[in-house]
Amino acid sequence: MTDQLAALSPGSTIGILGGGQLGRMLALAAARLDLRTLTYGTGAEDPAGQVSTRHIHAPYDDDAALARFGASCDAITYEWESIPVRAVEIAGAGRTVAPNLTALRTAQDRLLEKRFLSELPGVSVAPFRDASGTIDALRRAVAEIGLPCVAKTRRGGYDGKGQAMIRTAADIAAAWETLGGHALIVEGFVDFTREASIVCARGQDGEVCAYPLTENVHRDHILHTSTAPAAPSVHGGDDGRPGDIARTIADALDYVGVIGVELFDTAEGWVVNEIAPRVHNSGHWTQDAGCTDQFEQHIRAVAGWPLGDCRPAWPVRMTNLIGEDAADWPTLARDPSARLHLYGKTEARPGRKMGHVNRRSG
Amino acid sequence: MTDQLAALSPGSTIGILGGGQLGRMLALAAARLDLRTLTYGTGAEDPAGQVSTRHIHAPYDDDAALARFGASCDAITYEWESIPVRAVEIAGAGRTVAPNLTALRTAQDRLLEKRFLSELPGVSVAPFRDASGTIDALRRAVAEIGLPCVAKTRRGGYDGKGQAMIRTAADIAAAWETLGGHALIVEGFVDFTREASIVCARGQDGEVCAYPLTENVHRDHILHTSTAPAAPSVHGGDDGRPGDIARTIADALDYVGVIGVELFDTAEGWVVNEIAPRVHNSGHWTQDAGCTDQFEQHIRAVAGWPLGDCRPAWPVRMTNLIGEDAADWPTLARDPSARLHLYGKTEARPGRKMGHVNRRSG
Repeated sequence: MTDQLAALSPGSTIGILGGGQLGRMLALAAARLDLRTLTYGTGAEDPAGQVSTRHIHAPYDDDAALARFGASCDAITYEWESIPVRAVEIAGAGRTVAPNLTALRTAQDRLLEKRFLSELPGVSVAPFRDASGTIDALRRAVAEIGLPCVAKTRRGGYDGKGQAMIRTAADIAAAWETLGGHALIVEGFVDFTREASIVCARGQDGEVCAYPLTENVHRDHILHTSTAPAAPSVHGGDDGRPGDIARTIADALDYVGVIGVELFDTAEGWVVNEIAPRVHNSGHWTQDAGCTDQFEQHIRAVAGWPLGDCRPAWPVRMTNLIGEDAADWPTLARDPSARLHLYGKTEARPGRKMGHVNRRSG
Repeated sequence: MTDQLAALSPGSTIGILGGGQLGRMLALAAARLDLRTLTYGTGAEDPAGQVSTRHIHAPYDDDAALARFGASCDAITYEWESIPVRAVEIAGAGRTVAPNLTALRTAQDRLLEKRFLSELPGVSVAPFRDASGTIDALRRAVAEIGLPCVAKTRRGGYDGKGQAMIRTAADIAAAWETLGGHALIVEGFVDFTREASIVCARGQDGEVCAYPLTENVHRDHILHTSTAPAAPSVHGGDDGRPGDIARTIADALDYVGVIGVELFDTAEGWVVNEIAPRVHNSGHWTQDAGCTDQFEQHIRAVAGWPLGDCRPAWPVRMTNLIGEDAADWPTLARDPSARLHLYGKTEARPGRKMGHVNRRSG
């Protein structure tokens, strides 16, 4: 590059910690730019490992394997936000790690995440309290937040797991029964009209490029559809706000890569639910919208390249294929409006993300 | 599938003979559909082998390696039209080979190709004569075709190699000197206003889907740009003809897969120059035109899937990156209008296709 970016040349190797579908799609995007990928996951048949240049399968606490992995890479990223920080530290020692460890630590712990977000100008989050250690701490937190509220594990929850709704004081004991073995946070219940997200890329030079607001519909706590661009908020007057929120968050973390910011649309304005320090399921529509997709965008950022164009050419709806949904592939294959993406997972367990379909929606 | 197609299920393996950039882009397209790829090429670092599920590197006359390759595949295709027919026969014994061997044999020999094309209704080719064996045969062929004409090797020519222009009788000796060691054909000189091509897919059920006419500009006998859709012919009245020509050819060969048909636009109408039994450089623009690209289309056909949509959403121009052109990647990476594709070739030899760029052209 002619500027100061430490850009990786074609032929360089990007290490991806995590072997799932996000790593798979990152590896495919990298290959278009002749950036090689070394993936690290726990299975020999990991979706990412099937398509990366090379795959190491080993546990995330195998320090020797992690060091070997890191030594073969020119930069390191991750596709799973529950990756142990220590694994990233060992793999990334002495080289570029993007997103950085502050972003990862923050996103891995709901309490740190909420504290971080609540201190940012123009960013709203639900009221929250630390509720770890004893059932009395949980009771105190519920009393302070008020009913209804939600008890959540600080770490490791996803797709609705690790959460318990508390509608009356009588629900506290059941919540403690289910979650009490973990450090907890209590969050005020957010009365939202819909769920949305912003997928946003930030380059090594601080350039920020946000895809349009995306509206998300969940089924059984799992993302079902993402539609972009989302209709403006019925609460009005804040249509540019989600992009500003995402930029504020990314700047504050000195973030490099693609970040997903989940939002609630409420009568009081946009409330940030959580952030994901990686490419995001609600950004899969970018693959078939005539712009640079989120996977290439992330690879560009990690490699120190300039970001691509993130303005879609048309509206798109992404539909996840969950569990047995993927058995419909013959129907989807013959639907000229459907762009099909399958992840290479052999076992279609209930709730498992097997693929997705993008369709132009206007 | 619910119909009679013998469609390969996700997780099946498509074997690709040839290790170049066309195989690379086929493997990347297959991965989106969870179709695995086993590539076969002569180099450990082949562009295709870097991204395929698995790569075998061995010579094309290694029968044991070819048989081992074939035994691991559910269907076989090829990405290099000079692949020895015998190699395809050994690898493909007992399994689906697409495109079929008739198409491959025909495209590999300019004399067979011209004979085949000249017998099809509505298809024009330059006048041609067999000119093999002796300089006298060459003289006779030139006398019958008339001047100017072109002597070409029947087999193996590409990018302008294996050809000699004959403007006067005095050029015959020089042509014989250069090409006389090979079986030859003499073709009448075609006075064309421009070069164009049709990239066309044909499925196992006979469904045909042609991309729009593409206008091609060559530099130093190597494709430089492809622009689609091409402007209508200035000779008028035949705008639907190229698609009909491609369909006639594909049907006559009982073709399965993507075929490239190179055309001359002349005052007398469209003249077919040659056919390529594979995805085609002039079809690379399909990757960034908002339709199913030629690589996925070929994989779909080989796998017995229905074809995707081949109507581009906007006009596109593809520019090849030849030799040192690819050193411009930092400039191309920061051009928001450029979609960059690099092939993973380390050595940028003059004339070598290193990558390409697609840009929306309207």
